[in-house]
Amino acid sequence: MPEWRKDPVVDRWVAIATERGKRPSDFKCVIHEKNDGRCPLCVGREKDTPPEVMAFRQAGSSKDTPGWWVRVVPNKFPAVRIEGSQGVANRGVYAVMDGLGAHEVVVEVPDHVDNLDMQSEKQVAEILWAWHERSLELRRDRRFKYIQVFKNYGSTAGASLEHAHSQIIATPMVPVEVKNELAGFSSYAQATGRCIFCDLIAQEIAERERVVIQGKNFLALAPFASRFPFEVWIVPAFHQHDFVLLNEEQVRELARILRACLRKLSVVLCDPPYNIVLHTSPVNDMETKQYHWHLEILPRLTIIAGFELGTGYYINPTPPELAARYLRETNVQNEELSHREVI
Amino acid sequence: MPEWRKDPVVDRWVAIATERGKRPSDFKCVIHEKNDGRCPLCVGREKDTPPEVMAFRQAGSSKDTPGWWVRVVPNKFPAVRIEGSQGVANRGVYAVMDGLGAHEVVVEVPDHVDNLDMQSEKQVAEILWAWHERSLELRRDRRFKYIQVFKNYGSTAGASLEHAHSQIIATPMVPVEVKNELAGFSSYAQATGRCIFCDLIAQEIAERERVVIQGKNFLALAPFASRFPFEVWIVPAFHQHDFVLLNEEQVRELARILRACLRKLSVVLCDPPYNIVLHTSPVNDMETKQYHWHLEILPRLTIIAGFELGTGYYINPTPPELAARYLRETNVQNEELSHREVI
Repeated sequence: MPEWRKDPVVDRWVAIATERGKRPSDFKCVIHEKNDGRCPLCVGREKDTPPEVMAFRQAGSSKDTPGWWVRVVPNKFPAVRIEGSQGVANRGVYAVMDGLGAHEVVVEVPDHVDNLDMQSEKQVAEILWAWHERSLELRRDRRFKYIQVFKNYGSTAGASLEHAHSQIIATPMVPVEVKNELAGFSSYAQATGRCIFCDLIAQEIAERERVVIQGKNFLALAPFASRFPFEVWIVPAFHQHDFVLLNEEQVRELARILRACLRKLSVVLCDPPYNIVLHTSPVNDMETKQYHWHLEILPRLTIIAGFELGTGYYINPTPPELAARYLRETNVQNEELSHREVI
Repeated sequence: MPEWRKDPVVDRWVAIATERGKRPSDFKCVIHEKNDGRCPLCVGREKDTPPEVMAFRQAGSSKDTPGWWVRVVPNKFPAVRIEGSQGVANRGVYAVMDGLGAHEVVVEVPDHVDNLDMQSEKQVAEILWAWHERSLELRRDRRFKYIQVFKNYGSTAGASLEHAHSQIIATPMVPVEVKNELAGFSSYAQATGRCIFCDLIAQEIAERERVVIQGKNFLALAPFASRFPFEVWIVPAFHQHDFVLLNEEQVRELARILRACLRKLSVVLCDPPYNIVLHTSPVNDMETKQYHWHLEILPRLTIIAGFELGTGYYINPTPPELAARYLRETNVQNEELSHREVI
């Protein structure tokens, strides 16, 4: 029998195929299209992007020249703009607002490579620090209520540039997904006095079947109501509402686990397209300590189609228990070591 | 300046590019993959599907043999099953339910063609009648609270079979999208005593700039907060909460307008992949007269990526006013007539 499973925090039921679940070999290998055009994100082409807002670069090297290892620039074709007010105006039955926001691109590596999972743990940690620094900087603009960090890898996951990059969009409102999560955290806290994610982590560690990697500070797991085959979440094992509260040791471990999860997905699923989405507390007057931040890795092997768009619910042909077993049993440890030695 | 626009009913903001909006020529033509395999939906292959649950067929022809023009069969690989109970069980912090539901395929034409927009208006009306009849039949099972009718056209919109078809999934719960819409209808009704869709239609007819086709009983429009470029909704111009209340004249007109919208999209956007989603009232004890049913046509030229998955909000590079102008100015009238004459 298939099974309807509800996300523990939000109203999202997923029909999960529990018996003849789709295995990795049931999914086609995705051929990543190669873009022959001149890449504006490559080192040496700094003038092809708007001026950088931040970079980790060698001492003495100048802004918008080579010498950087992670570089953040405004999106050349931003979805939102930094100018404008947060006032909502009515046009009859409709509501509108200036397209206020910030839209930045985090260039994750200087050379033209696309795979984040093939970078060193140290490089992944530097990317996390860039997310961290921009998250702190953008919230200083008090018009912003949320800083959305995300990554699209592969054209079917929405990447329009091949060069490894992530994006940050600051919005003047708290997104509905985050509001819904907050409502879920609140109602559980009111009923039990506890954080549902903290309870969930304890249950997952006890049950083990959905655990992918258990670290000292983080748990990587295939979520119980996974929307997508081989979906993986990385959750702090302790209560922390905001991503920017991470310390150095935690960032180092998060980088190691994130990279290992991406390597495992790449090995098991033949380099799949994916999205990474950071879920963290709103900022400024909307900040809330009840939130438990986490990273969602969403492989895009299935299509969000009419059923999902109509209902907000999902159909997932791969039980998360099966996905977790494949990912757990795929060893990327030695590979990591050898890779680290090379760098 | 881009603009944030809010859907009038649900909490869904869309960042809409208002100045340099993407025109049809800015989107790549999608090449529809041809599937060489044996098609189980073709006339003459009735034994390749589970036994039909309904068909419009020539008098005297037998079940599961040729002679039909629209045929409905259970999905061979259903996401949900007809057996099971609606009881919710807890597993620690999680909630689960039997994978209860019905999952049917509406085979829209006997011969192996994929384009619904190239069928006659009469054939499109027959497909609508099949949706109608199955919607009525499935709700007789009182465990079902919603009947979701949808269509995926093109592999990037989720179609796994080429042969023109739509799908119906009956669920034991009201989907969150519908619940959110109902909350929006209710709060507007409480504030004004009116239906927001009825007010919206009056405003759209007065403003004209987002109207695609204005019929006697239906309005086709590019919605104010369109999530997707060239998104089109077809809305009854009078208050009707449930799709199954349509009469013969209305079905005829809906078929004409639906087909014309699909033709216009095909001509303007070079045969794009799309989803069609029916939004209608829940059924059985959840039925509500406040709802205003409608059809959503969602061209899939952009990718639902990290920002959309993280926030529940959208970025749309084509203003609906621009989309409506292209669609309005594309004449498919003569073509329709000649096509109708041939059939």
